[in-house]
Amino acid sequence: MKYTDLNTPMRTIMTPGPVEVDPRVLRSMSTPIVGQFDPAFTNIMNEVMEMLREVFQTNNKWAFPVDGTSRSGIEALLCSIIEKGDKVLIPIFGRFGYLLTEICERYGADVHTIECAWGEVFDQQDIIDEIDKVEPKILALVHGETSTGCMQPLDKIGPACRKAGTLMIVDAVASIGGVNIKVDEWMIDAVIGGTQKCLSVPAGMAPITYNDRVEDIVQQRKKVELGISTNEDKQRELNRSLSFIQSNYLDISMLQDYWSPRRLNHHTEATSMLYALREGLRIILEEGLEQRFNRHLFHEQALITGIEAMGLELFGDRSAKLPTVTCIKVPTGIDSELVRSMLLQQFGIEIAKSFGPLEGKIWRIGTMGYSCRKENVLFVLGALEATLLYHHADIKPGKATTAALDFYTQNIQPSVSVV
Amino acid sequence: MKYTDLNTPMRTIMTPGPVEVDPRVLRSMSTPIVGQFDPAFTNIMNEVMEMLREVFQTNNKWAFPVDGTSRSGIEALLCSIIEKGDKVLIPIFGRFGYLLTEICERYGADVHTIECAWGEVFDQQDIIDEIDKVEPKILALVHGETSTGCMQPLDKIGPACRKAGTLMIVDAVASIGGVNIKVDEWMIDAVIGGTQKCLSVPAGMAPITYNDRVEDIVQQRKKVELGISTNEDKQRELNRSLSFIQSNYLDISMLQDYWSPRRLNHHTEATSMLYALREGLRIILEEGLEQRFNRHLFHEQALITGIEAMGLELFGDRSAKLPTVTCIKVPTGIDSELVRSMLLQQFGIEIAKSFGPLEGKIWRIGTMGYSCRKENVLFVLGALEATLLYHHADIKPGKATTAALDFYTQNIQPSVSVV
Repeated sequence: MKYTDLNTPMRTIMTPGPVEVDPRVLRSMSTPIVGQFDPAFTNIMNEVMEMLREVFQTNNKWAFPVDGTSRSGIEALLCSIIEKGDKVLIPIFGRFGYLLTEICERYGADVHTIECAWGEVFDQQDIIDEIDKVEPKILALVHGETSTGCMQPLDKIGPACRKAGTLMIVDAVASIGGVNIKVDEWMIDAVIGGTQKCLSVPAGMAPITYNDRVEDIVQQRKKVELGISTNEDKQRELNRSLSFIQSNYLDISMLQDYWSPRRLNHHTEATSMLYALREGLRIILEEGLEQRFNRHLFHEQALITGIEAMGLELFGDRSAKLPTVTCIKVPTGIDSELVRSMLLQQFGIEIAKSFGPLEGKIWRIGTMGYSCRKENVLFVLGALEATLLYHHADIKPGKATTAALDFYTQNIQPSVSVV
Repeated sequence: MKYTDLNTPMRTIMTPGPVEVDPRVLRSMSTPIVGQFDPAFTNIMNEVMEMLREVFQTNNKWAFPVDGTSRSGIEALLCSIIEKGDKVLIPIFGRFGYLLTEICERYGADVHTIECAWGEVFDQQDIIDEIDKVEPKILALVHGETSTGCMQPLDKIGPACRKAGTLMIVDAVASIGGVNIKVDEWMIDAVIGGTQKCLSVPAGMAPITYNDRVEDIVQQRKKVELGISTNEDKQRELNRSLSFIQSNYLDISMLQDYWSPRRLNHHTEATSMLYALREGLRIILEEGLEQRFNRHLFHEQALITGIEAMGLELFGDRSAKLPTVTCIKVPTGIDSELVRSMLLQQFGIEIAKSFGPLEGKIWRIGTMGYSCRKENVLFVLGALEATLLYHHADIKPGKATTAALDFYTQNIQPSVSVV
C-alpha cells in the first residue's frame, strides 16, 4: 500500500493559530456520530448555542457556528447584511482589515477606509468622528489584529454606532476566549470568533453571534430553497422588500432556520467539529472567563519578561498590545526565516512570520488557549535564545529563560485547574 | 458544572447521510495537530490531493477539499465559473437539482431547466438535445439524487458537452466512493463529492476536482487579497478580462493558490477534518474502487431482497436506481414518521424521510460506506418488520430477515478485507 498510517510529528505550536488542540477536544472528535436530526444531536446544537452565548457574553438569540473556517463566518455576516451600494466604513490597522475590505468590495459595498500605521490602533474618537462624517450603514473592524499583535479598544464605539444608526460588526477571531470582549455591554451588533486560536479547537468552524438589528435585515432578505419551501415561504418572498442574499451556503437567514426549532434542512452539520467545539467551550466555561483572560495575561507577561531579558525588542505600541500575540523585531543581520526553520527542525517549535510590509521584519509568538502554558513559554524562550546565538545575533546569553523562571516562581499562576 | 461530558447514544445510521463514520477515521481525528504551513502538514495536503485524484478517477491537476459541507463545494465551483447572465442548463429530477438552480440564480445566471418526474431520470439524448437547443455555457446536474434514490447516467453527456463548448459540472455528493463515476473517461469538467456519505467521513469538507477548461476561466477571474498581494498580482488584475469572483471564501482561484506550491494564505486548513478525509480515502484505496462498488451493490441486493420479501414496494424506476439509496413506499394507512421515530427510539436505527412532494410518501434507506454492511442490513430489516407489524401494516411476517439471510449465505460477499 502506497499510503502509510498518518504519521505526524509532535510540535510545540506557538503561532497565532492554529494552536495546539486541547487533548480533551481531540478525544471528543473520536466519538461515533449521530444523525443530524437525531434529538441527541439537536440537543447538542442547542447546548452549543447556549455555551456560545456565555463565551460571547451576550443574550442574543442567535449564536451558532458557520461550517467553515473563520473567514466563512466573516463573509456570512457581511454578505447577509450588505446590499449593493451600502456604505461600509472599515478602520484598517493590519492585514485582516484588508480582508474585511476585500469581502465588502466583492459584495458591491461602497467601502470607506481609514488607516493607521501597522503596530498602532485608532483612538476610538477618531473612528467615531469618521462614522459621523461617512454615515455608513455598517462599521466593520478587527478586534485583535494578529498580523501586528495589536488590539483595538471598542467599548466607546458601539454606543456611537447605535446613535448613528450604524451596525457594528467585529472580527474577534483572535481574541474570543483569550481576551475580554463584552458583546452586549459594548453594544456590538455582530461578532465572529475563531476556533483554532484561543478556543484550542481545530480550524473548520466560525462561531458567530448577532442581535435583532441584524436579524431584522436578514429576515427581510430571506429566501427558502425550491424543493423544500412551503407556499407560505413563497408568499413571503413575493413581498420581500430587500434583495435576496447572494450566497446560499453563507446565507444567515437559512442558517438560522436550520439552528432554530424549525430545523429547516440547509447543510449537514459538521458533526465531529461540533463535538470539538462543544468540548472547547465547556473547557472555557469550566476555567471561567475571567480566570482564562488572566491566565493569558500572566503567560504573556512571562514571555515578554524573557524576550526583553535577552535584549530583543517588541514591535508595536505597547499600550495597544493584543495579549495573545507578541511581536518581536528581528535583530539586524538575522534572517527571520532561517531562525524559524531551525526552531521547527531542531526543536519542533513553530512560531510565525507576518505579512506584507512586516514580512521578514518581525516574528509573532502566540500564547493562545492550550498552547498558552508555562512549559511552552519556557521552551520557546530557551530555543529562541539558542537559535539566535547559533546565528551570531547580538543578544544577552543566559538571561531569557531564567528571567521567565523568576517570574513564574515569584508570581502565582491564575487558574491552575485546567493547565 | 452545568454541562456534562458529551454523552451520545450509539446509533445504526441507515440514512443517505450522514452515515456511520469508519472507526479508523474517528481515531485519526484524535491526532494532535501540526501548523498549516508545517512541511509535515503540506505533505499531507499533497497526499490528499493524490488520493482524491484516484478516487475521482482523474488526472486533473486540481483535486482538493473545500472547507465546508458538500454544498460549499457546489457553490465554490458554480460561483467561480458563473458570470452574470451566463446560460446554465439544469436537468432536475429531485430536490438537489433545485439546489443547483437556486445557487446559479443567486449568482445571476440565466437558468434553463428541464424536469422529469421524481423517481425517474432523463434519457441522455434528451439532455443532449436540450444542450443543442439552449447552447448553455454550463450544464449542471446531479449524479445520485438522494431525494428520490435515482441515478442519472452520464457517460454520453460529457462528449456532447465538449462538442457544444459547454462545461459539465456534476454533483456526485451521494455517489462518490460508492458508485462508479469516471471523471476523465466520461469527460466531466468539474465534480463535487461529499464526505458524510459513501466516504464515511464526518460532514465538513467538500472534495472537488476540475480540469483545465475550468481552470482557464478561474485564472482569468483571479484576485489576490490586498495585504498579501504582490505588484505582479496587482498588474495581472488590471488586465483581467472577466469579472472577479463574488465570494472570497469560495473563490477557487484563491483556494488553488493555497493548495499549490505557492501556498498563498487563504484560510487555515481544517486540520483534523483533513486527517479524517485522508484516512477515509486511504480506506477506499485499500479496499479498491471496483471491490467497493461491488460491495455496495451486494448489500443493496440483500436489502431489496428483504424489503420485497416482506411485501413492501420500492419507489422509483428500477433501471435508474441509485445503488446506495433504496426508497420504499410507505404502505397505505401507515404514518411514516411514527415508524421512523419507533425505529430510532426502540432500536436506535435511523432511516430517512424525503422532501417536498415525497415527504411522508417514502422512506429512504442508505447503504453507504461503513454503514453498508451485513449486520446493519439484517438489523434494519428485522426492526422495520417488527415496527410495521406493531402498527398493523399489511405485510408478510417472518420473511424479510430470512430472505436477506438466505441471500447472504448463498452469495459470496465481495471485499471482506475492510468490513
